[in-house]
Amino acid sequence: MATDGTNKDLLIQFIEDVWNAGIVDAADKYIAPTYTIHHDPGDPWDGMTLDLAGYKERVTRSRAPFPDQRFAFQDLLATDDRVAMTWRWVATHKGDLPGFPATGKEIRMSGATVYYVRDGLFTGHWQVTDRLGVYVQLQQASEGTR
Amino acid sequence: MATDGTNKDLLIQFIEDVWNAGIVDAADKYIAPTYTIHHDPGDPWDGMTLDLAGYKERVTRSRAPFPDQRFAFQDLLATDDRVAMTWRWVATHKGDLPGFPATGKEIRMSGATVYYVRDGLFTGHWQVTDRLGVYVQLQQASEGTR
Repeated sequence: MATDGTNKDLLIQFIEDVWNAGIVDAADKYIAPTYTIHHDPGDPWDGMTLDLAGYKERVTRSRAPFPDQRFAFQDLLATDDRVAMTWRWVATHKGDLPGFPATGKEIRMSGATVYYVRDGLFTGHWQVTDRLGVYVQLQQASEGTR
Repeated sequence: MATDGTNKDLLIQFIEDVWNAGIVDAADKYIAPTYTIHHDPGDPWDGMTLDLAGYKERVTRSRAPFPDQRFAFQDLLATDDRVAMTWRWVATHKGDLPGFPATGKEIRMSGATVYYVRDGLFTGHWQVTDRLGVYVQLQQASEGTR
């Protein structure tokens, strides 16, 4: 069974490789064959269980409007079967979103996620993000480009 | 130094007493003489450091529109100096909010909080809540009462 430290390191490496660097196929090393988005209000996959191909599709589509996105870690707490992560995120709005064509502006977000771990792979997450904050920034950015 | 289990139990008791039951003076047992709201977008005290009286004022004013509010715990992870908590919240909208007079409707929210602990007292928190979800519910509840 993985130690606490190992799960924390696993999460850091996963976020860096898959979500920050955008190496989508690196998900093979981190994501279980079935992955459940237990709670993630505003995420198009909220409540769904994905296979690995579905997870990679989620990464690709989520990153497309924000290709230079970076998660920075605030707090990390781990047990042998889960890791809690609070985070800040920054990205340039380079691709279109529903209602918000690309603005080229910097967007910031914060959130918190618990990742569930089994046998060294992530099996799902429970997440809340400050999507009202993002919405307000996108509105302001859109006004600035009109 | 407190064990992990102790900090988890401390947080559960604090939330039950102060935020769920609304026993504001119970904050004396849980809150440090200075308490910092490190990050809490949408909270009127975001970024502020409060004394105990200020903290109690925050509890009183935050609970006023939602006097029957209940936090339910999703995940709890603890170390010797912090506790991460993911949660769901439900309350009846019984008091006025800016732009939203009391509707009597049930409002649901979710969020995640890291509480920082020193010598058995909470010294601050870092929190994200799904405030867009709350905003949408308040709008719908207000339309229903018009």
